[in-house]
Amino acid sequence: MQSNIPKVLQSRIVIIGGGFAGLRLLRKLQRHDFQLVLIDRNNYHQFQPLFYQVATAGLEPSAISFPFRKIFQSRKHVFIRMTEVVRIDPEARLLITGIGQINYDILVIATGGDTNYFGNSNLKALAYPMKSVSEALGLRNRILENYENALITTDPEEKQGLLNLVIVGGGPTGVELSGAIAEMKRFILPKDYPEIDFNNMHIYLLEASPALLNGMSGKSSEKAYQYLLKLGVKVRLNAMVRDYDGKTVFLANGSVLSTRTFIWAAGITGYAPEGVRAASFGKGNRLLVDSFNRVTGYENIYALGDIALMQQDGFSNGHPQVAQVDIQQAANLAENLVRLYDGKQMKSFIYKDLGSMATIGRNLAVVDLPFIRFQGFFAWLVWMFVHLMSIVGVKNRLMIFINWLWNYFTYDQSLRLIIRPRTK
Amino acid sequence: MQSNIPKVLQSRIVIIGGGFAGLRLLRKLQRHDFQLVLIDRNNYHQFQPLFYQVATAGLEPSAISFPFRKIFQSRKHVFIRMTEVVRIDPEARLLITGIGQINYDILVIATGGDTNYFGNSNLKALAYPMKSVSEALGLRNRILENYENALITTDPEEKQGLLNLVIVGGGPTGVELSGAIAEMKRFILPKDYPEIDFNNMHIYLLEASPALLNGMSGKSSEKAYQYLLKLGVKVRLNAMVRDYDGKTVFLANGSVLSTRTFIWAAGITGYAPEGVRAASFGKGNRLLVDSFNRVTGYENIYALGDIALMQQDGFSNGHPQVAQVDIQQAANLAENLVRLYDGKQMKSFIYKDLGSMATIGRNLAVVDLPFIRFQGFFAWLVWMFVHLMSIVGVKNRLMIFINWLWNYFTYDQSLRLIIRPRTK
Repeated sequence: MQSNIPKVLQSRIVIIGGGFAGLRLLRKLQRHDFQLVLIDRNNYHQFQPLFYQVATAGLEPSAISFPFRKIFQSRKHVFIRMTEVVRIDPEARLLITGIGQINYDILVIATGGDTNYFGNSNLKALAYPMKSVSEALGLRNRILENYENALITTDPEEKQGLLNLVIVGGGPTGVELSGAIAEMKRFILPKDYPEIDFNNMHIYLLEASPALLNGMSGKSSEKAYQYLLKLGVKVRLNAMVRDYDGKTVFLANGSVLSTRTFIWAAGITGYAPEGVRAASFGKGNRLLVDSFNRVTGYENIYALGDIALMQQDGFSNGHPQVAQVDIQQAANLAENLVRLYDGKQMKSFIYKDLGSMATIGRNLAVVDLPFIRFQGFFAWLVWMFVHLMSIVGVKNRLMIFINWLWNYFTYDQSLRLIIRPRTK
Repeated sequence: MQSNIPKVLQSRIVIIGGGFAGLRLLRKLQRHDFQLVLIDRNNYHQFQPLFYQVATAGLEPSAISFPFRKIFQSRKHVFIRMTEVVRIDPEARLLITGIGQINYDILVIATGGDTNYFGNSNLKALAYPMKSVSEALGLRNRILENYENALITTDPEEKQGLLNLVIVGGGPTGVELSGAIAEMKRFILPKDYPEIDFNNMHIYLLEASPALLNGMSGKSSEKAYQYLLKLGVKVRLNAMVRDYDGKTVFLANGSVLSTRTFIWAAGITGYAPEGVRAASFGKGNRLLVDSFNRVTGYENIYALGDIALMQQDGFSNGHPQVAQVDIQQAANLAENLVRLYDGKQMKSFIYKDLGSMATIGRNLAVVDLPFIRFQGFFAWLVWMFVHLMSIVGVKNRLMIFINWLWNYFTYDQSLRLIIRPRTK
């Protein structure tokens, strides 16, 4: 397959979104003669796999966030702009943003996904999502405040709702979060709140399908289920949520659960700025791309990672929305943009599945590699090593390592702080 | 002087405020047979001397904050309530709080001080205070956002206002903060924002009196002034602020300064809940106390630290509002409450001045001890050692030490993150 893009230098590359895909692309391209512009709502890269540890007060937000400006400090042709993209104007080759117009020669959309509430406005208004550091921190504050409030309420029903947590979605986020909350319940909360009887606290994990961790092997899925039961999590498979009113979760089978903390980790939907023609969107609000990650119908617009839907052999519904795909697509696109500049043909993306893993708790993890599957303590060590090595910044790596060691030996962090910046 | 308090057990001691004074009192009393209640707006103790490092992205808020519940985890007779005190009712011996009524036998007011804007409502609305971790974090976000905005504005006047900082108050907070900002300007900002010419950034430190660090020796005051000049801070002594409109600072001598970041560290005023009779208040809205820290006119209400005004020989206007006084008064009161319980006479408070110190920048500090005064690198080491040892929590101590070491060798942190919790 041959590229149809004219072999002239597309000199100004604008990337929307500094997640795994956008950041990798920028890092790969920074040594080349492009003018590079990164647009992100935040001034930092976020390490999504550890959001759940921020939410459960195991890590500080700063440990899994890294300022873009520090990464590209010495690169004078990398421009970082903290703003929202309001609209893309493909005809005029420019973006309308919160800080004005930004022109591009090549546009790369790497905006990822946002929480999918499947059109339920109650869920959107009341459920806690887990798609950013800010949301994870907001959830942490909420959980801590709930126990402060549980101390003082005299209404038994309200107290029960404050103690309980319901997590929807049996993917890695839901599994890891419910495991971490179960460990808080066991090791920390009874010490912090001796006035509360935590036998009355229930953690529910709801999954609509018949199994947890659907992207992983049956063995890992089964083990994760057993580990969660062991930690005291009430796992409900084939459980569809119908609604939530801020106090009660209504399930499709007619049963109800009482909780003030309803966490929604049950799906994502593509999050693309306005202005892209409707015909370029596929299933899940993702942008249809060819095997070079070029958005169908456009010559100079690319999409990467979670937002991109590339239909290939074995991936008729696109690739899984995981960090590995983001990073590999970004690396391939970086190479292709350089090839384009050099007048060479572009290379088709080929996904290499490096495996997947999830941690359920202390010494408990599941790992599926292409050649081997294993669970338990060694899987947990591998999980920690892989995540530590993936974090941006040597100091962040060190800080997380110390935090984990500390937590392992003391069973207790000192991060249960409800801190909100006070601005004028 | 003899105590007039009846020698019966005052069994329920309620402490408002978990700052240096309240926390020390609680720690000293926890081994005794009192029922102890701590009321604080936050669920954590804050280490005020390092707020300026949070504001300048040198430390994380979590490093200088510590959850009360973790400190008192094993103490079943210590009750912690996160709420505001609305009013004290001394007749009925109870507090009206955000979570209902709380009775006391003995009440200890350790609410400290709040920023004193001297009745200027513009300052109150627009100036940045530095009296809490939340305010320091809000200031950090503001400073970082200002440089993002300076990048994109085309109005030269607005740009100048975004680059400049004006700090009012030549006490330790103002001196340490302006020194830290000067180091950001020198080592970090030009690398983060190569598009901005930081020769145009000006840092002003305004002090109404003829000298900086008025509580310290003439030598230290003079050295601090020289260090700040060396770092490029424009120090203006005898400079009275008349007003601020959000863009321009108006000085009493008719001159003006342009800034969007106007930091007010020029004074504190006592911050006591309502309900205490007017006659018990002295200068600076502080509560008049006898030499046992008992509020005049009450038998069972005490005040500690910044909020207390104890007139003694050499301290006709009360003791300095510094951590040393808070801690020593708390220790003395703890001993006195136990003595009261044991039917013994209370002991008068005697202040022991252990000295004071301030750091201006890398290798630059001033230290006044009772027996010796010194400045420079060794003073800086002593400053760091004393502050590290004063921090609550071994892990916090370790984390701060690593941060400081890292900063010393790399000249650069990775904490310039604008993170706000997102709640529902």
